[in-house]
Amino acid sequence: MAEDPLFVYLAECKDLVLDEIKTFMPEGRYRPILYDYMLEYPLRLGKGFRPSLCIATCRACGGRLQDALNTSAVLELFHNAFLIHDDVEDGSHSRRGGPTLHTKYGVPTAVNVADGMFGLTLGPLLANTELIGLGKSLRILKLISRMTRETVEGQAIELDWVRRGVLRLRDRDYLLMTYKKTCWYTFIAPCQVGGIIAGLDDKRLVILRRFGRYIGMAFQIQDDVLNLVADEDRYGKEIGGDFWEGKRTLMVIHFMRACRPAERERASEIFAKPRQEKTAHEIRFLYELLAKYDSIGYARSVARQLAGKAQTILDSTAEWMPPSVHRAFLMGMTDYVISRDW
Amino acid sequence: MAEDPLFVYLAECKDLVLDEIKTFMPEGRYRPILYDYMLEYPLRLGKGFRPSLCIATCRACGGRLQDALNTSAVLELFHNAFLIHDDVEDGSHSRRGGPTLHTKYGVPTAVNVADGMFGLTLGPLLANTELIGLGKSLRILKLISRMTRETVEGQAIELDWVRRGVLRLRDRDYLLMTYKKTCWYTFIAPCQVGGIIAGLDDKRLVILRRFGRYIGMAFQIQDDVLNLVADEDRYGKEIGGDFWEGKRTLMVIHFMRACRPAERERASEIFAKPRQEKTAHEIRFLYELLAKYDSIGYARSVARQLAGKAQTILDSTAEWMPPSVHRAFLMGMTDYVISRDW
Repeated sequence: MAEDPLFVYLAECKDLVLDEIKTFMPEGRYRPILYDYMLEYPLRLGKGFRPSLCIATCRACGGRLQDALNTSAVLELFHNAFLIHDDVEDGSHSRRGGPTLHTKYGVPTAVNVADGMFGLTLGPLLANTELIGLGKSLRILKLISRMTRETVEGQAIELDWVRRGVLRLRDRDYLLMTYKKTCWYTFIAPCQVGGIIAGLDDKRLVILRRFGRYIGMAFQIQDDVLNLVADEDRYGKEIGGDFWEGKRTLMVIHFMRACRPAERERASEIFAKPRQEKTAHEIRFLYELLAKYDSIGYARSVARQLAGKAQTILDSTAEWMPPSVHRAFLMGMTDYVISRDW
Repeated sequence: MAEDPLFVYLAECKDLVLDEIKTFMPEGRYRPILYDYMLEYPLRLGKGFRPSLCIATCRACGGRLQDALNTSAVLELFHNAFLIHDDVEDGSHSRRGGPTLHTKYGVPTAVNVADGMFGLTLGPLLANTELIGLGKSLRILKLISRMTRETVEGQAIELDWVRRGVLRLRDRDYLLMTYKKTCWYTFIAPCQVGGIIAGLDDKRLVILRRFGRYIGMAFQIQDDVLNLVADEDRYGKEIGGDFWEGKRTLMVIHFMRACRPAERERASEIFAKPRQEKTAHEIRFLYELLAKYDSIGYARSVARQLAGKAQTILDSTAEWMPPSVHRAFLMGMTDYVISRDW
């Protein structure tokens, strides 16, 4: 398993980028009360998807590794900052096999540390002007600006559903939310940034956006599946958390559509309760619906279709992305996002 | 009162900048679930210090109003985003005469909305390249990067004191924390941004930083005083909140230094308790120490000295900042920050 080239590629990129992130952190008196906290999540087990995708796309398109490290590290920092705020927002207890940052140090410190991480991204993005030139640097800054807007809008959609108790949703509502909340910062921006560094034109960046959209939606569906059925130690988060938090996943939308009126009514009542008022018995009822209507089977089939589309798009890029270990990594990812078990 | 030219100046700048901020918010389906929330604090009563300082410095140094509006609006957006996260971090209930955002819509939405505001600042800062040119735009971006770092470090110092129960502090510890937490984003960055837009060189920007440091520290001390003794309706926040939250203000440092050992011990015990475990009786005891040792009188005298230094620095700039209503506004602010009652 550990010798699968995809895992080797991920591990190498993660190590390189972790070293790069450390160079962003000023030494001195604020290190132990601020910057060390910023490194906690990155230093825990994590796959390093975002930097790997950025580096792989850059190199597959003829760009240089050393030009992509800086921005890859920025993307990883963004990701970890979003994780800290997400954990606060969701009231999550564990992350990557350890307690969440706010559980460990309190909400005030967690919120502030993540703000600091967002703030810390600007310096390296400006330093890009000397590394890769002004034109590419400004394109990347604009892309990051769009990425944060999309992510926050996606998060706003999901929070709005939970707060207003919206349950009548179509698959396409879920997919749009996921496109904004997940695809942009996990796949689209990493791939497009890599492409910009390698010097791709806008037309090819659009193709990368389509690739990122499909693979990202497949990834999120699998992530939602794992949240409900994964092995907790391996997954690193509490299992079933999405049910407790009332997340509207594709599986929930599916069984709410497929189930009988009485079941729908009871499930609606459970979803209407805040996290702390739900009971283990009620969560079990949601698991029963999940099994009865094979909503996981349905979600997996949708994820497979989406991953297939991502593969087709990648197949179409052979002209400007010739065979290489980097291209092979991107192709491998289209399988991995739906087959992974953590 | 309303005809005091300082208030007229503040009100005019605030109106202009509010209109500018509204242009940052995309119309459409995400408006009611995200962008309208971003406008809540800016639309409430607020003084508009930051945009006014930016505009006044720019114009006092010969720059144009229309060149400063965009970046002034960015600073106001940053300020309001920090307020939202501060309110979450401090568990505050009211802000500018209304409920805090997380009280009204929940912590998840509040955290996300502020993240969105931080993200939204990047677009206008990049648009600056067309408005004021590339060189000035990049200098401003670097300044904003430093500003966020300083702010977050200042916040980290204060949170660290509360979390570790540190009470043996010197005035200079408080002033350093304030320099980072408050001066940078409230005075230094606004004035320096205004100076950059007007085309000042680095030497003059350093003078503006010194001005911002002294006026900012005076401002924060008065803010801490008002937090304990202001008229609640006018101040817009709960009175005594800093005692409940365990903030280490100059007054607390003063009476902890001046009081008798038994008093110090009891006060330490009170400060060690989390907010919800403190009693009204205990808060009254802190108020008694405050009165007994005239810590407010002490804090006010320090604030007066600091404001005086800011005036002296401003006096020294007459050569490159000739008499104008804008310069008069800056000078008026050195009085106002210590005389204001809300």
